[in-house]
Amino acid sequence: MNLDLILSNVGKHIELDGEEEKFFVSLLEPRTFKRKEFLLKEGEVCRYTTFVTEGCLKGFTVDKGGEEHILNFACRDWWIGDIYSLITQKPGMLNIEALAYTEALLLPRDKQQLLYKEVPKFERFFRILTENSLVANQQRLINNLSLTAEERYIAFLHKYPSIFIYAPLHNIASYLGITPEFLSKIRARLAKKDV
Amino acid sequence: MNLDLILSNVGKHIELDGEEEKFFVSLLEPRTFKRKEFLLKEGEVCRYTTFVTEGCLKGFTVDKGGEEHILNFACRDWWIGDIYSLITQKPGMLNIEALAYTEALLLPRDKQQLLYKEVPKFERFFRILTENSLVANQQRLINNLSLTAEERYIAFLHKYPSIFIYAPLHNIASYLGITPEFLSKIRARLAKKDV
Repeated sequence: MNLDLILSNVGKHIELDGEEEKFFVSLLEPRTFKRKEFLLKEGEVCRYTTFVTEGCLKGFTVDKGGEEHILNFACRDWWIGDIYSLITQKPGMLNIEALAYTEALLLPRDKQQLLYKEVPKFERFFRILTENSLVANQQRLINNLSLTAEERYIAFLHKYPSIFIYAPLHNIASYLGITPEFLSKIRARLAKKDV
Repeated sequence: MNLDLILSNVGKHIELDGEEEKFFVSLLEPRTFKRKEFLLKEGEVCRYTTFVTEGCLKGFTVDKGGEEHILNFACRDWWIGDIYSLITQKPGMLNIEALAYTEALLLPRDKQQLLYKEVPKFERFFRILTENSLVANQQRLINNLSLTAEERYIAFLHKYPSIFIYAPLHNIASYLGITPEFLSKIRARLAKKDV
C-alpha cells in the first residue's frame, strides 16, 4: 500500500491530524489489477472511488457499433470512478480497465459516506476534487468544440505527459475522437515541425 | 428576489435552520439582465456563482475563427459560472450572456468562502452540485463521442425541455456541435417520424 502517496494527495487540499489519517487509511482497500483486467464493467453499479498508486487505468464506453470511446485515463496519483453510477447507485455506462499492471487504493462508497460523517473536512476535499474534474471536463468540451484535432492532441500531451508508457496510439486516438490513421498523420506533421 | 426558489434548490441537498437561511440569503446579490447583456466576458475573472430565478443565460466560447460554441444553458432554477476561472481566479474563456430578460441571485466568491466557514454544510451542497455538473458534462462527452447528431438532439430536448422559449435554433445547433442546416434536416426527419 502506497499510503504516503494518497496522504500527500489528500494533503494538497485539507490538513489531517494523526487520528484522522489513521481513520481514513483504515477505510481503504488495496487492490492490484493485471493488464486488461476490469475494475468496472458497463451495466454494473460503481461502488468505489479509486486512487491509482502505480500503473494506469482507462475509463471508456462502447457504442452500439462496438466502437470504444475513451473518456479518461488515470495514472499514478489520479482518482477515477464512474461518478454517475457512484452518485445514483444505478448501473453505469463506463468500463474501467487496466492498461498495465496497476496498484490502487479503493474507497468503498459506504465508507466514503462514513468518512464525510466522521471527518467532515473530506466534504471539502471531494468538493475540490470534483471541481477540478469538472474544470478538466469543461475544458475538454470546449477543446472538442473549438480546437482542431492537432491542437487537441497537443493539449492532451500536456495533460498526460507520461501516457505513452501505457496507452497504445489507438487509445489516444479514441480519447481525441479521431481515427488512428488521422492521429498518425498529425504526429508525422508535428515531427516535421519539430514541436 | 425569488428567495423561495433558491432556498428550495438548496433544500434539495442540505437542511438549513432559520439562522442559516438568513445568513445565506444576506450574502446574495440580486441582479437583472436585459436580453444580450453579459454577466461575464472572456478574459475576465469570474467572481460569482449565479443562480437563475427567471429567464435564461447561455455560456459559450468563441474560437479563433470567431465562431461561437455553446457550453451550457442556465434557465430558471439552475446555477451557472465559469468554474475554471472561479476556482483559479484567473481570466476565463467563457462568456455568459442573457438570452432573454433574466433575474438572478449572485453569490460572490469571497462570500461563498465565508459561507463554507460559517455554515460548513454548504461544502456538502456545492460538492453535490459540482458532482451533478460533472455527471452532466461526462454524459455530454460520452454522447458527443458515441451518439449520432440526431440522438444527441433528442437527449438535449430531454435535458432542456423548455429551451425553445429562449434559445434560437442556431444556438441549439452550436450546443450540439453541428451546423444550423444539419439541425434543420434532423428536425424535419424527426417531424416525419412523429417523435
